[in-house]
Amino acid sequence: MSVLKIVSNANITEGLWNESLDSHSIIPDEFDGITYYRVVKKVGLLERGTVVTDSGIIYDFPRIARILHLENGIKQSFNNPFYVEEKVDGYNVRIVKIQDQVFAFTRGSYVCPFSTDRLVEFFDYDNFFKENPDLIVCGEIAGPENPYNGESPPYVTEDISFFAFDIRTKNSDQPIPMEKRYKLFDEYKIPTVTRFGRYTPSDINDLKKHIQDLNEKGCEGLVFKPTDPSEKTVKYVTAGSCLRDMKVTSSLMIEYQAEFFTHRMLRSLFYLLEHHGNLDDTFLKKTGDALLQPLFESVKKVAEGEMITERFKVRFNKKQNIKKLFEHFHNCKVDANLVRQEKIGQHWHVEFVRRCFPSYEVIQKHWDGHSHFD
Amino acid sequence: MSVLKIVSNANITEGLWNESLDSHSIIPDEFDGITYYRVVKKVGLLERGTVVTDSGIIYDFPRIARILHLENGIKQSFNNPFYVEEKVDGYNVRIVKIQDQVFAFTRGSYVCPFSTDRLVEFFDYDNFFKENPDLIVCGEIAGPENPYNGESPPYVTEDISFFAFDIRTKNSDQPIPMEKRYKLFDEYKIPTVTRFGRYTPSDINDLKKHIQDLNEKGCEGLVFKPTDPSEKTVKYVTAGSCLRDMKVTSSLMIEYQAEFFTHRMLRSLFYLLEHHGNLDDTFLKKTGDALLQPLFESVKKVAEGEMITERFKVRFNKKQNIKKLFEHFHNCKVDANLVRQEKIGQHWHVEFVRRCFPSYEVIQKHWDGHSHFD
Repeated sequence: MSVLKIVSNANITEGLWNESLDSHSIIPDEFDGITYYRVVKKVGLLERGTVVTDSGIIYDFPRIARILHLENGIKQSFNNPFYVEEKVDGYNVRIVKIQDQVFAFTRGSYVCPFSTDRLVEFFDYDNFFKENPDLIVCGEIAGPENPYNGESPPYVTEDISFFAFDIRTKNSDQPIPMEKRYKLFDEYKIPTVTRFGRYTPSDINDLKKHIQDLNEKGCEGLVFKPTDPSEKTVKYVTAGSCLRDMKVTSSLMIEYQAEFFTHRMLRSLFYLLEHHGNLDDTFLKKTGDALLQPLFESVKKVAEGEMITERFKVRFNKKQNIKKLFEHFHNCKVDANLVRQEKIGQHWHVEFVRRCFPSYEVIQKHWDGHSHFD
Repeated sequence: MSVLKIVSNANITEGLWNESLDSHSIIPDEFDGITYYRVVKKVGLLERGTVVTDSGIIYDFPRIARILHLENGIKQSFNNPFYVEEKVDGYNVRIVKIQDQVFAFTRGSYVCPFSTDRLVEFFDYDNFFKENPDLIVCGEIAGPENPYNGESPPYVTEDISFFAFDIRTKNSDQPIPMEKRYKLFDEYKIPTVTRFGRYTPSDINDLKKHIQDLNEKGCEGLVFKPTDPSEKTVKYVTAGSCLRDMKVTSSLMIEYQAEFFTHRMLRSLFYLLEHHGNLDDTFLKKTGDALLQPLFESVKKVAEGEMITERFKVRFNKKQNIKKLFEHFHNCKVDANLVRQEKIGQHWHVEFVRRCFPSYEVIQKHWDGHSHFD
């Protein structure tokens, strides 16, 4: 089907489509011979993150509202039963078949060469998409050897794993009902995030136990998904995940929105007050450490004339996809450099270093003695 | 002289003046029968913070550029000798005579009823302004009993003190030369900030000793003032002052720009690396404590249904100025309520409580379980 015909179902006229291309609100891109269109600025009903292909529209993966108080948040959000799933700390992909190929799209609407390379190991997608060509499998790729996220769940100790949590349909911005979703996951043996099951707001004590357990294990949190479509999905995270977020990002504090840190401080305190009732010295020390130690190391590096870098390891099936990952980084203005690629067993083991020039530059100017107004 | 005639010397035409009043870039105000005009949005050469009176223009007190590395910052900033003064943690006032009265203007260009009330105790201003009616004495009011700032220097253990650091002239945005300034301070017995004297960039070791000494004593920092007018004033603060800033404000973290906190983290690390070479566990713990403990107390208060408040004590000479301070708060949209006023000896001892509604409201909504997108 033509792309114009496809977007016409989302009330995008030919005029608006062409205008959006001219103004770079929608940007054409290509992967393995397949053309796709990335919505980078909202156009009509199409939010940023949406992908338009000649096999249909892959709507953006929606942001999820957050609650800071588990018990009150559940009571405010739900009058009806809801499903509870683990929130896994990784990066979000939408897996979809376009023409004869299957791709993993990132939240930023790019085909991710790394994720796409590894799809074949996640589940039998040939079988799944043969029978369900219009479905989109959404999930988290998580683990210590991923190219984006500095955190990973404690139970993925090497490489990466895929954890599905949603199934959507092309040309629709709604997920399919929970029961059907879980049935498909089981039927096609698609690995999923931990599914805690169906609860009602009165089960709050069980939910508290789950979250406290996740906090102790070093997991991120929970997602609560309504059975009543008029209610909305909400998320809730552990105090430990706030600490880890701060620790893995504070080396680049200057590049992040400052709210990234203050929001996590507030979140962790809400968690501690609700679940522990107090704030102990260990947590204070850990927070100081998470915020300052990595940033101190960055300042030290720059003071010694070194670039600030982040080191990543990833594994690939196909050598040609390594090059595509670096092309992807180039497109996203990520300054990443390959330092090693070696075939070990089934996989290409790749190491690369990201140069964090914006942080380096600011720290370097300050260290050099330049004055500034703040 | 008419106000129009006065602003014409700053290239403000009658048309622009009237337009600025209409658009509320300049706002007329009144104190004790004296009318003055507050520049709240830049108009021509008049920056925000400037005060226009029929006795002349009181230019805004300029922001001072900051250095994060003492040694390199001094070398970058100065080729010629400079004067070194203590940076005192209080609030800035400009003391000026208008017609027959002497007022203290805040940085926000208001007459401060509290500071104006206490001027008589600072120095013999009658004598000073009789001989120097066009001069403006600029300085810091600091101490534990002030109505604005939660911090105070360690050597002001009760009430407040005044510390002059600058003398400017009406209708000029420049200070008078350092030597003349210090002569006037001494001649009129005007108390000043600690004056460390005249230095050159090669005296860096002495400056390091001074700042380390200030850090140990719990003082804020240093200001470096050029003798060569082509060079500019810079400031540098101690690691301890960053910690204290965080500690006195984090209860209201939600109301502050998040950068307030991240900037202070970075500053303190620069200090520690330059002067100590390391970041120890004590500092990590203190930072965690400064950032989290006061905010945790705020969340606890709201969880228990209490308003978040800040308590202030101040002393006045004249009872009628107490009421004027509350009028001033009302104009600045500060929700302050008198809880006690009592004449003890020479002074009226006043206690008031500021209600911090914006923080309360945000925390309360989160605690109540409302979900939000971040």
